[in-house]
Amino acid sequence: MMQLGFALLTIGSVRAKSAKSVALKNIMDAAFGGVGYFFFGWAFAYGDKLDADGNSINNAFIGTNNFAMSTTEESKYNTFLFQYVFAISTATIVSGAVAERVKFIAYALYAFFLTAWVYPVLTHWVWTTSGWASPTRLASLGPLFIGSGVYDTVGSGAVHMMGGVAGLAGAWVAGPRRGRFDANGKPVTMPGHNAVLYMSGVLLLWFGFYGFNPGTMGQLIAADGTSFSGVVARCAISTTMGGCFGGTVGIIVQLIYSKLCHGQAIWDLTAAGNCALTGMIVITSGCATLEPWAAALGGVVGGLIVLPSSLFVSHVLKIDDPVDAFVVHGIGGAAGVIWYALMAHKEFVTELYGAAPDGGQRHWGWWQGDYPNVLGANVIWCLVIFGWTFAMMAPFFYVLKLCGLLRISPEEEELGADISKHGGSAYPGMENMYNEHEASVK
Amino acid sequence: MMQLGFALLTIGSVRAKSAKSVALKNIMDAAFGGVGYFFFGWAFAYGDKLDADGNSINNAFIGTNNFAMSTTEESKYNTFLFQYVFAISTATIVSGAVAERVKFIAYALYAFFLTAWVYPVLTHWVWTTSGWASPTRLASLGPLFIGSGVYDTVGSGAVHMMGGVAGLAGAWVAGPRRGRFDANGKPVTMPGHNAVLYMSGVLLLWFGFYGFNPGTMGQLIAADGTSFSGVVARCAISTTMGGCFGGTVGIIVQLIYSKLCHGQAIWDLTAAGNCALTGMIVITSGCATLEPWAAALGGVVGGLIVLPSSLFVSHVLKIDDPVDAFVVHGIGGAAGVIWYALMAHKEFVTELYGAAPDGGQRHWGWWQGDYPNVLGANVIWCLVIFGWTFAMMAPFFYVLKLCGLLRISPEEEELGADISKHGGSAYPGMENMYNEHEASVK
Amino acid sequence: MMQLGFALLTIGSVRAKSAKSVALKNIMDAAFGGVGYFFFGWAFAYGDKLDADGNSINNAFIGTNNFAMSTTEESKYNTFLFQYVFAISTATIVSGAVAERVKFIAYALYAFFLTAWVYPVLTHWVWTTSGWASPTRLASLGPLFIGSGVYDTVGSGAVHMMGGVAGLAGAWVAGPRRGRFDANGKPVTMPGHNAVLYMSGVLLLWFGFYGFNPGTMGQLIAADGTSFSGVVARCAISTTMGGCFGGTVGIIVQLIYSKLCHGQAIWDLTAAGNCALTGMIVITSGCATLEPWAAALGGVVGGLIVLPSSLFVSHVLKIDDPVDAFVVHGIGGAAGVIWYALMAHKEFVTELYGAAPDGGQRHWGWWQGDYPNVLGANVIWCLVIFGWTFAMMAPFFYVLKLCGLLRISPEEEELGADISKHGGSAYPGMENMYNEHEASVK
Repeated sequence: MMQLGFALLTIGSVRAKSAKSVALKNIMDAAFGGVGYFFFGWAFAYGDKLDADGNSINNAFIGTNNFAMSTTEESKYNTFLFQYVFAISTATIVSGAVAERVKFIAYALYAFFLTAWVYPVLTHWVWTTSGWASPTRLASLGPLFIGSGVYDTVGSGAVHMMGGVAGLAGAWVAGPRRGRFDANGKPVTMPGHNAVLYMSGVLLLWFGFYGFNPGTMGQLIAADGTSFSGVVARCAISTTMGGCFGGTVGIIVQLIYSKLCHGQAIWDLTAAGNCALTGMIVITSGCATLEPWAAALGGVVGGLIVLPSSLFVSHVLKIDDPVDAFVVHGIGGAAGVIWYALMAHKEFVTELYGAAPDGGQRHWGWWQGDYPNVLGANVIWCLVIFGWTFAMMAPFFYVLKLCGLLRISPEEEELGADISKHGGSAYPGMENMYNEHEASVK
Repeated sequence: MMQLGFALLTIGSVRAKSAKSVALKNIMDAAFGGVGYFFFGWAFAYGDKLDADGNSINNAFIGTNNFAMSTTEESKYNTFLFQYVFAISTATIVSGAVAERVKFIAYALYAFFLTAWVYPVLTHWVWTTSGWASPTRLASLGPLFIGSGVYDTVGSGAVHMMGGVAGLAGAWVAGPRRGRFDANGKPVTMPGHNAVLYMSGVLLLWFGFYGFNPGTMGQLIAADGTSFSGVVARCAISTTMGGCFGGTVGIIVQLIYSKLCHGQAIWDLTAAGNCALTGMIVITSGCATLEPWAAALGGVVGGLIVLPSSLFVSHVLKIDDPVDAFVVHGIGGAAGVIWYALMAHKEFVTELYGAAPDGGQRHWGWWQGDYPNVLGANVIWCLVIFGWTFAMMAPFFYVLKLCGLLRISPEEEELGADISKHGGSAYPGMENMYNEHEASVK
Repeated sequence: MMQLGFALLTIGSVRAKSAKSVALKNIMDAAFGGVGYFFFGWAFAYGDKLDADGNSINNAFIGTNNFAMSTTEESKYNTFLFQYVFAISTATIVSGAVAERVKFIAYALYAFFLTAWVYPVLTHWVWTTSGWASPTRLASLGPLFIGSGVYDTVGSGAVHMMGGVAGLAGAWVAGPRRGRFDANGKPVTMPGHNAVLYMSGVLLLWFGFYGFNPGTMGQLIAADGTSFSGVVARCAISTTMGGCFGGTVGIIVQLIYSKLCHGQAIWDLTAAGNCALTGMIVITSGCATLEPWAAALGGVVGGLIVLPSSLFVSHVLKIDDPVDAFVVHGIGGAAGVIWYALMAHKEFVTELYGAAPDGGQRHWGWWQGDYPNVLGANVIWCLVIFGWTFAMMAPFFYVLKLCGLLRISPEEEELGADISKHGGSAYPGMENMYNEHEASVK
């Protein structure tokens, strides 16, 4: 479902001649990503030696057994499914950032690499009982990181920011689409070909976030027998607040910006959609520990950061990210990790994680009155995500580039990936119309 | 999800040049409506003083505290979410009725007004333990209305009819689209631009009704600890029957009508879709208290009323309602409120509401053998909904009109709202084709 | 939801001039099929005399009472809903196979016939406690078929294979679309008109399979009070593995085939989508009793069989099946019935069905070490499904053909069903473009 949301959003945002290519890539994600996560990713993430209570006691860096789910207990199957969906989501986020110019073989290889290695290792660090950054690390394995561990419950950081940074690496190494920047390096707008698909994608993702955020929490219930129904409801409220306030603020920001800089106030669909998504991503990590007003404020933050970040990426970094994947997921995800550290409510943290390993009160949000331990841990976590992901993905894409496997040829790009690689246009009969339109715009 | 269904249905039903505008409006609904309901709507609806049992004891007309969810308990979060979805659905219903001719600012203002004030007050009356029309009104606050209270469980009346009437008010004040009626006042057909989107919308809404109807009942379980699994299953059966029989009858009615009046039998997609939806709306209120055969008959009623109602609106009232929102939701919703009053099964009413405040049997459906108390209460409820909604929305739209905020200019309408207001067509490259088509039709 | 998935997949796969026709047919399925199943199908399938424990004790062939749900207990409502969805799915599968050339009246008639008679009788045999093939047959009614009964839990056979075979019968009797085979009988490719719709359909169906497979199991919980959470999780894992490995293998097979036979490696969207679906269908029956590796292997099987089967149907049988419904559902479903018989895990069979009627161990998968009883029963079951379905549907379609009710006229087919029967194109304004394209391809 999330997959379909991402797919329609991306397809709506690219030009018609690449529509089929993106469609196939999104089915590929789900398929190749599942194969990669099944054989390797699940093992690297959760494949630990277990103690008598079923907690992993292996090492802080990586899981080392249970390849191909060889010894997985059925009680962990739900975790596998959620992690699978998370893993292929990171691959899909990247697909938006490198759309319309990357070879299919490159896509297949990085989707596998991402779901089998880069993403799983990151989640081992923060979501298992042996990971160095985990707030649920077993006391027998050492103290919590900075006394609190990293708070990144549903993955503003480990899923969204990670996907956004990987997308940035890909878009940077691959270079911009032909014609995206003019001779002076000024960005040229390349509008998507179908606003209805874009909107459908946004609304499906919005719906999907109720699966992501409360759903992940609901799954915890089954895992340890405790009822989390209050937590689940809180996540759903947080998600709603994040999306509503993000979208509202985003529209207003765009109205002001277009009036001031272009002289005409534009009610912009992309601003509304991207800001609503960013608002939800900002509250993703903290969805279980934010009060409704804090989630609403988080949505406002999401609505405020999108436009300046987007201008920064296209005008200063001069990177071509057709769907603003880095802005929405990367920067929005980082903001979510920080927002959690600032705003986590004391009682809700206890409800979610229980008492600290020493039996005392766990740390909570800095702006809610605690010492800034969580803030310190989460800021470092953002740097770790950026460093690990970029250090893995940029060389990976660069090697592909050296091997000639990354970029489609200029002729193919001009013609569109659909005809050159996929045996025909996504919309047979409409090629001429779209080609004439593109020529007329130039 | 419902939001996406409404959006695709409406987009498919309007002309291509307004597609992006409708897409944005549907994201706006979810965002602005959420903000309005969060700050004000929730308080006006459920923000009551509570007694020791958590029942509202405030007053019969309106809630008066808990603005911005300031004191909401977590056990009420699920109620908030369902009510939020209901609230934005009413706004979306209106968006279909006023499509292709209303300014964006008007849309933003009425969406806020509707979700923050008009809808919440109505729900306070019928769904809280202090509302004057509520069948669960506390005995300490006075007797039930006409001895039974109004039966409108999931909102045939408070949601659908209310949205439909608001849409009628908007369509009436805004006036028809240019060219919708010829010089003699005869309606001119303006077909939608994409039947596939329309169908997707219908099927998504159909799926969504399983969330609306059984989902609302399922949520009751959590609220009071009783298991309602039988009720939930009955709602799902009712919904299925309503949709199936509504759609089937609608197709047959349209076949007969087109054969008799136009000489050729047409298997009509819009008739099938609108009648299936209307059938489901007719059984929405009573979904928990109808036997399967009564729900099937309700679907037949839904399938029968659409065509004559639609002809009445366009040929007699001469109101331009591009998606027949008033017919489907307004008249269908009213039929649902009445159908409940006629057909509610005695045992099911007891299962749902428990005993009457005096400990005796509650009233049930007139055609099932009871006195017509519920019928009287529900007929009055329909009049109240019509009166309240029209009295609120018609002046509101009229003030907007006086301020020049309601209607886009004739030039903009000719050009299409997408280009004039939203920075470009929904389908770049296809504008010429659609414009030529429109010219050729004229 | 499944309905929307099937609809979009089919619409994307046909030519634009039939899009509206397919859209209407899919709303019709849900409506007419519901009416047929409500009045007759439910009774023929489950309408048995019951013993004191609520088990049906009627006869091995057919249910005989409870028409129009007259005496259905509420505890069976969930079963009705799942069966209703299964029933209309079989009708929808057929609609793909006969797309673009069958009269609407034929469609309405066979949808009713299928959901009211052909499908229900089949399910009575295998899924009730009195059916001759059922593994849960009451001991008092006789021994299990071949000592084990037929294992077809969620319907690889009774739903998918049955729908695929009915589609084959329809496509065979109706004959190919005009121009699908050239003068020498060589197939001519007729590509679909919208790859994005196709992809949306695939991903929706993928999502829907989580409702079909684990959902059916989850419903069992309610029915008998036992918790099946482990079974549900296993079904979800199986479904994921089937889809991922099916899609991956399908892409690779197509790459090799296109390189060897056409000289250029094509990354093919249809191959990816159809093979992912087939992979899921192969593990549908056994979803509750397969270990993850066995489900993954089942997905591989699904990915391998699609291309050769499809070539066989179009080049050898010379049958025109626009969406490969027989290949995906018919052959994939048969493979699923066989795969179950080979791979069912001993402990999982016990968990699902309990002990055998004599108190001993039930039979399990042949390749897991048991005698081939289940394999024998399931192979015979495949023959029975083929025989029953073909014997019912082929004469039915043939009678329609004799009455002149089956096939639209050549002129109508040339023009497209949308304009001739449904009052206009699905995409007003785009007819000329699509017509020119078709002429140019010829």
